Amino acid sequence: MSQPAFWLSKSKFPLNFLRFFLPRKAARASSERASAAMADSSAPTRVMMAVNESSLKGYPHPSISCRAAFDWTLSKLIRSNTGGFHLLFLHVQVPDEDGFDDMDSIYASPEDFHQMKQRDKIRGLHLLEYFVNQCHQLGIKCEAWIRHGDPKEVICSEVKRVHPDLLVVGSRGLGPFQRVFVGTVSEFCVKHAECPVITIKRKANEAPQDPVDD
Amino acid sequence: MSQPAFWLSKSKFPLNFLRFFLPRKAARASSERASAAMADSSAPTRVMMAVNESSLKGYPHPSISCRAAFDWTLSKLIRSNTGGFHLLFLHVQVPDEDGFDDMDSIYASPEDFHQMKQRDKIRGLHLLEYFVNQCHQLGIKCEAWIRHGDPKEVICSEVKRVHPDLLVVGSRGLGPFQRVFVGTVSEFCVKHAECPVITIKRKANEAPQDPVDD
Repeated sequence: MSQPAFWLSKSKFPLNFLRFFLPRKAARASSERASAAMADSSAPTRVMMAVNESSLKGYPHPSISCRAAFDWTLSKLIRSNTGGFHLLFLHVQVPDEDGFDDMDSIYASPEDFHQMKQRDKIRGLHLLEYFVNQCHQLGIKCEAWIRHGDPKEVICSEVKRVHPDLLVVGSRGLGPFQRVFVGTVSEFCVKHAECPVITIKRKANEAPQDPVDD
Repeated sequence: MSQPAFWLSKSKFPLNFLRFFLPRKAARASSERASAAMADSSAPTRVMMAVNESSLKGYPHPSISCRAAFDWTLSKLIRSNTGGFHLLFLHVQVPDEDGFDDMDSIYASPEDFHQMKQRDKIRGLHLLEYFVNQCHQLGIKCEAWIRHGDPKEVICSEVKRVHPDLLVVGSRGLGPFQRVFVGTVSEFCVKHAECPVITIKRKANEAPQDPVDD
């Protein structure tokens, strides 16, 4: 019977014995690596969060998904280490986001469009204000800004521009059928964003009865 | 021209003015929510990490991807808050993982299989020892264990059993062609694991020349 090439293949020594075979250099390097990893900790971890509005009518507040992702980030990642993190809130406004609300509107002048844009801007700022206020209360440094376009594309291009350490995206936890139509932002970001991505799925009991109200 | 139903649609008030419209109850609830999120911080955040071996011959060390994911978790999430996190290392051994090494072996007795299993166990323990030692040096509480089976299925079933707050998986950052054959563990976990999942893609300059050596 031929001997497999692997150096441990026929060994029956207990695990502790292995330590004597590890070269000292390797042990030292391992210890240095661990220290180096922790030494990085001086610069705060920059966490980008993509936030969007709830579509509940007349209630311009953060969506259930992005609020859940924010709360999770506070309680599970940042914890008491508020000085160690820097939050970057990005809100991407889709040009026709309010199409359904405005279907009965008639646009007759440039002023109509100006008012529409003004209204969108106020809603976007109000959304970001929610997160900035919470961070301020907790003593967490943050920045917030608005961009326009296709959320998944804009989020990935902003990651490329801003170089966060981590991107957090909420996910509505849709089934495979619904996902075909609406739920692909988080999946796209996991694949294409040039930084580690964390997807926070919404809990089943947090889903609104009507998916349009998410 | 009909009026859109949205309450802010025609408003030109500056953003600060909005605050007076927010019911006090909502403001109080918001503040309480922030405090509640941080109060959760008493129990450590339980982070499960799926770790695997490098397939470099004769070098039973962690793979480049899972070592990068571990280092990232230390420096970017745990930082100096070593008491706030509890690491759970899961190593899933694939039964025929060493098929290529052993292709020239002849198995003639039950003892051959016993030796093979014994060797796999030692390699798995040696892998976990690397991570447990590092955590011990840094004062981070941890646990580590081995399971057998299809990694993506086992990882998700262990998440279901252990209920971590977060699952960290390294990803080899393969292109779409290679991914069809080998790189689907992280994608599967993002979709199916019942907890938030973070995918740490390996940097391009960390890829080995031969993908088999990953």
